[in-house]
Amino acid sequence: MKEIHVGIIGFGTVGKGLAYTLLNQKERLLQKTGVSFVLTTIADIAVQTLPEEFSDVKLTRNAGDILTDPNIDIVVELIGGMEPAKRFILGAIASGKHVVTANKALLSVHGREIFRAAAEKNVEVGFEASVGGGIPVIKALKEGLVANRINYIEGILNGTANYILSQMTDHGTPFAEVLQEAQRLGYAEADPTYDIEGIDTAHKLAILMTIAYGKNVQLTDITVEGISKIEPIDIRFAKKFGFRIKLLAISRNHGDSVEARVHPTMVPENHMLATINGAYNGIQFQGDTVGDVLLYGQGAGMMPTGSAVAADVVDIGRNIAGGCINRVPALSFRPEHIGDPAITPMQHLICPYYFRVTALDRPGVLSMITGILGKYGISIQSVIQDGRDIEEPVFIVFRTHLAEEDAVVKAITEIDALPICSAPTVKIRILNPE
Amino acid sequence: MKEIHVGIIGFGTVGKGLAYTLLNQKERLLQKTGVSFVLTTIADIAVQTLPEEFSDVKLTRNAGDILTDPNIDIVVELIGGMEPAKRFILGAIASGKHVVTANKALLSVHGREIFRAAAEKNVEVGFEASVGGGIPVIKALKEGLVANRINYIEGILNGTANYILSQMTDHGTPFAEVLQEAQRLGYAEADPTYDIEGIDTAHKLAILMTIAYGKNVQLTDITVEGISKIEPIDIRFAKKFGFRIKLLAISRNHGDSVEARVHPTMVPENHMLATINGAYNGIQFQGDTVGDVLLYGQGAGMMPTGSAVAADVVDIGRNIAGGCINRVPALSFRPEHIGDPAITPMQHLICPYYFRVTALDRPGVLSMITGILGKYGISIQSVIQDGRDIEEPVFIVFRTHLAEEDAVVKAITEIDALPICSAPTVKIRILNPE
Repeated sequence: MKEIHVGIIGFGTVGKGLAYTLLNQKERLLQKTGVSFVLTTIADIAVQTLPEEFSDVKLTRNAGDILTDPNIDIVVELIGGMEPAKRFILGAIASGKHVVTANKALLSVHGREIFRAAAEKNVEVGFEASVGGGIPVIKALKEGLVANRINYIEGILNGTANYILSQMTDHGTPFAEVLQEAQRLGYAEADPTYDIEGIDTAHKLAILMTIAYGKNVQLTDITVEGISKIEPIDIRFAKKFGFRIKLLAISRNHGDSVEARVHPTMVPENHMLATINGAYNGIQFQGDTVGDVLLYGQGAGMMPTGSAVAADVVDIGRNIAGGCINRVPALSFRPEHIGDPAITPMQHLICPYYFRVTALDRPGVLSMITGILGKYGISIQSVIQDGRDIEEPVFIVFRTHLAEEDAVVKAITEIDALPICSAPTVKIRILNPE
Repeated sequence: MKEIHVGIIGFGTVGKGLAYTLLNQKERLLQKTGVSFVLTTIADIAVQTLPEEFSDVKLTRNAGDILTDPNIDIVVELIGGMEPAKRFILGAIASGKHVVTANKALLSVHGREIFRAAAEKNVEVGFEASVGGGIPVIKALKEGLVANRINYIEGILNGTANYILSQMTDHGTPFAEVLQEAQRLGYAEADPTYDIEGIDTAHKLAILMTIAYGKNVQLTDITVEGISKIEPIDIRFAKKFGFRIKLLAISRNHGDSVEARVHPTMVPENHMLATINGAYNGIQFQGDTVGDVLLYGQGAGMMPTGSAVAADVVDIGRNIAGGCINRVPALSFRPEHIGDPAITPMQHLICPYYFRVTALDRPGVLSMITGILGKYGISIQSVIQDGRDIEEPVFIVFRTHLAEEDAVVKAITEIDALPICSAPTVKIRILNPE
């Protein structure tokens, strides 16, 4: 019976999830693979003792003990962040070990260097858990949809942001209040910036785009807007138009360029992504062959993420046992076919828009605003004018047909300069019709 | 550059889908795999000539030309049905060729024989396209969720039945009328029995259960009820209770036994499966590690199914190129660990129920019926009594708490024997709360 020896660096939430998964599923994995997956060593600088179930696992404070152990086949990096995670991963690769990681931040910034090093040493880098938690989305994209040109990616990739927006939608609560409650319940971190400002979502989109298109997409390629400025009033108007506001990762493939954007998005309420609530994730692809495919599940958490990390460990274990390392290229395309992306400039984005203009309710105000929109070629699908107290600021809310971002930005600048406009106009992009 | 030679038996809808996919995606597959997938031969008894794109593909009326061609690595069976499909598949295996098929009917009846033959010859049998069309559900279950005990499977696996139920729900149209329209539009076949009576769904459930549990589940293990008796009135009452009626494949894993059932099911309207409409499929799994995962997409059609068949061809091609045949066992578990299932007897099923009793509206009728339900330990969650014309038959509709099928059947028999009951009681099972 073949044994595969696994070392884990980082015994936090996901590290524990993997350790318990390998323990709980040991017999099942053996029955499926013929391989015994043995957790040999756990490295963590803060853990004093391991739970008693892991009494035969070595605990060390020194990750180097794992990197230099000739007995270990697969190193699982689960400390997150840039350094020392990057150093550990490159060290493992240099020692000819396979690597599994859930570290989307690292991969979206230093992925190119890591994957090049792995290709040179002919070792594997598994990263299923970096996107969509337990949802097998990387495998679906690399293997299940192998015979597809990916036309678009649309996803809810951050459970914290989706939880906050869901709560705001269900209860009309302001953002700051929901965030506090989420922090109290442990759904949001003490520093929630990555989650609420869309950065974590962008990390994940960079990874999905890279394997979908065979282009080295990095964090810096992606336009990112978070949800901290979303107000309950916009959620209410969204409902009136038949939309839900979601933080979406969106990439449409135009052939000569690809969109790369993360922002609050109005999603039609009958769209599957609009029905994904709470801390769940959902990722929709359109392939030219398969059409639309959506995957849904828990995008974070100890055991769901453990499931995905374990799937990578098993995948690599099967390849070690079968003598077919890098049977599927890490980034879906073979390294020599991966190029640099051409990103669609944001000002050329074309989608429908929602605007909320705050203006004094005087006769002629609507005609002034629509005049400006018309000048920039922005065609209105519907308008809601709220409130009727003359001389008080009211909201005038527009839903447009397809418009270009460049024209929209210019029009809003001009509208906001009108003396009757008393607050900056809020702009939220609407999901493109399919 | 490695070449893999493919022969297709059956140039119908899916056969064409595969041929066009291999043609359209040739360059992309080469960039991903380093393998050139060459469609060598197409066998079909009815096709006179191939489209001109396939001028370098050999057309034959004799499937034997493919089975005996030493140059062909992978035989794709896409004629469907029992014979001669079974003979062709076993012939291909006997010649040491790998097989890909979308034939759920065949696999759910003769799978055991086919997989045993393949294991003996150490060839692969790919069947991704047999369940969920283009959705990579088999791969998700075998690989992505490898480190999970599957707690349950719930799926909308037949697009025709789902289309009909969706139309009935949206427009209140009777079953027969929607079916005729579906046949006219090509969404239902001339003989729709397999689709509407749940047999096709049961074929697919047998396959999913086999790989989920490592048990040889066959069509005969599954209790099957179709949708042909669903009436608009029940869809309307379902809505009042907050449900949608869906034809579901359901298997819950009780450890010592597993449920195996296909029937119209009332699904809470906020459940993801309730939001899957039209010809789409959706499959939800619960794994003990990952929690709930749902996959959604087109469950049929030329290109979606072609995408799934092509994914199998590529998977096998990678294994041929990598020298790791049967890297993942065909049925997820290694053959020596696959046993026979213990199926939960249907009379022991426990779920909530919907009943529609047709009775004369006389004083005391509700007390008679609830008395019988009480006698069998069936607890009522809510009742709707419709119509108020004394001496005319009215509907009394019940939603129960968890009840046992055995008690439900006995209670309904007793209710239907009441003189005031003027038509058989309609019983629809409600999806178990999670």
